[in-house]
Amino acid sequence: MDALMLPLELLGIFAFAVSGALLAARKQFDLVGSVLLASLAGLGGGVVRDLMIDQGPPVAMTNSLLLLPVLLAVVLVAAKLLYENRLRKTLLAFDAMGLSLFCLTGAVIAYEAGLNPVACTLLGLTTGVGGGALRDVVANEVPQIFNPRGVYALPAMLGAGLTVLTLELGIFTIWSGLAISALVFTLRMLSLRFGWRIPLAGKHINEE
Amino acid sequence: MDALMLPLELLGIFAFAVSGALLAARKQFDLVGSVLLASLAGLGGGVVRDLMIDQGPPVAMTNSLLLLPVLLAVVLVAAKLLYENRLRKTLLAFDAMGLSLFCLTGAVIAYEAGLNPVACTLLGLTTGVGGGALRDVVANEVPQIFNPRGVYALPAMLGAGLTVLTLELGIFTIWSGLAISALVFTLRMLSLRFGWRIPLAGKHINEE
Amino acid sequence: MDALMLPLELLGIFAFAVSGALLAARKQFDLVGSVLLASLAGLGGGVVRDLMIDQGPPVAMTNSLLLLPVLLAVVLVAAKLLYENRLRKTLLAFDAMGLSLFCLTGAVIAYEAGLNPVACTLLGLTTGVGGGALRDVVANEVPQIFNPRGVYALPAMLGAGLTVLTLELGIFTIWSGLAISALVFTLRMLSLRFGWRIPLAGKHINEE
Repeated sequence: MDALMLPLELLGIFAFAVSGALLAARKQFDLVGSVLLASLAGLGGGVVRDLMIDQGPPVAMTNSLLLLPVLLAVVLVAAKLLYENRLRKTLLAFDAMGLSLFCLTGAVIAYEAGLNPVACTLLGLTTGVGGGALRDVVANEVPQIFNPRGVYALPAMLGAGLTVLTLELGIFTIWSGLAISALVFTLRMLSLRFGWRIPLAGKHINEE
Repeated sequence: MDALMLPLELLGIFAFAVSGALLAARKQFDLVGSVLLASLAGLGGGVVRDLMIDQGPPVAMTNSLLLLPVLLAVVLVAAKLLYENRLRKTLLAFDAMGLSLFCLTGAVIAYEAGLNPVACTLLGLTTGVGGGALRDVVANEVPQIFNPRGVYALPAMLGAGLTVLTLELGIFTIWSGLAISALVFTLRMLSLRFGWRIPLAGKHINEE
Repeated sequence: MDALMLPLELLGIFAFAVSGALLAARKQFDLVGSVLLASLAGLGGGVVRDLMIDQGPPVAMTNSLLLLPVLLAVVLVAAKLLYENRLRKTLLAFDAMGLSLFCLTGAVIAYEAGLNPVACTLLGLTTGVGGGALRDVVANEVPQIFNPRGVYALPAMLGAGLTVLTLELGIFTIWSGLAISALVFTLRMLSLRFGWRIPLAGKHINEE
């Protein structure tokens, strides 16, 4: 991973790890459960991405630096410096931050590994939504991605797609990357604020 | 993947993707949730298989053609051309079709990758049941494989085993493959129709 | 895998497979569901470990010997030679045995694959808790690792860490390994017996 991507990756890990530690707190897990759920949320998306790219062990295993933001997140939540407010917006905001950073870094890392543009977009999406989905599945919740209130995967796919487009056009910089991330974050948060909804998936027998 | 297997793989992806889109409809997920659940169901088994075979990125990532049946399935369900009937048999029928095709293609792909016959049978089984299990776990349902009504994994294992046997004997053709698939599908559907049951797994304290 | 580790790996597979078969019995799954849940519990941790190490297909696929303890576990549970007692301690004891053996063998196998000490410790932990977590997630239960009563991941991390330390110091033998495993098992069982608890993960809004 190059020097430009590493800070964004660390920030994304931190954001998702906070979401994991907050969910652990909500579910009354203990401190070790918090470390595990924060690790799964913060590192899970990247591990799935690295397994798919199939070029050696996941970077979360080989670069111990990536563990630090996870531990920091757990400490901040355990010390009650970060906690869910009454409207449960804190978890969702950190989750959105992780989503917006990982769809970017995931797409860049897949691109550097030489995958085709469609695969890079899909891997950016997978990296973005993967950690949160693992967090929710392991904590026995329906994943956030399936919550019909707000949009989740769509901004991540847009972010990954724009990242790949700017890479293909040779105009990707750290600044264009940050702008894409900010766009994804803003869309996600606006969708929660205004309750944007996407049409339902099909006809259900109970609706008849 | 050779030219003979590709159409069967695409059909299997379509069938499982329909099952995912139907489950998304039943769970009142939105259209994007439907795409994600259909992708997980349609492509998940093959991704797990390719991760295990460990010869580069999963074919679902590198060959964008495999995404088309997923999108087609979502569109057909969203357009209400495919929906669950009152007896909830539609989902189960498409799931059975995916199962019967993937236990075949999974075993063939593992065989072509040079794995031993036992491993090929297990990978055929894993490919067959993997997508459906991921679909159900992520949607927070007990996987179909554990439903005591009907047989599920057993026909898939039989299909994978017969596929490996015919490959070993050098008598595997597309027609013998289709016959094996038809057998798996028929056994699965008959087991649902007649409520075949396998003995329970052990003694439970409540039974005493 | 060298000759010293294989018996421990087989014993660990057996122990976790028993826990899977017992959970299948509790959940009233049928015999095939029992085989699948026992396989997932017994082989899942090692498969995740091997996917991460990324040196070819998982050993559970290539070495059919590893399937025997799974089948043995299912047969013993189906024949009601092993069952849960009223206090539901049997499942937890076998789960603890698997945990104590897999944190050891996982760390050793990662070490032999040339990963760094931190990665080896994490992979030992992942191997130890992975099979049990997959078992519980697929059976739609909150994983044992998140149960606030007793300690689970902490002894496994200690065991993996001690294994890596003794390997680094060049004093690892089968006997030191067994001593480490016995320590992990004892800590886990004592924690259940005396209800050891770790502080909760953070502030929850309901506590205010």
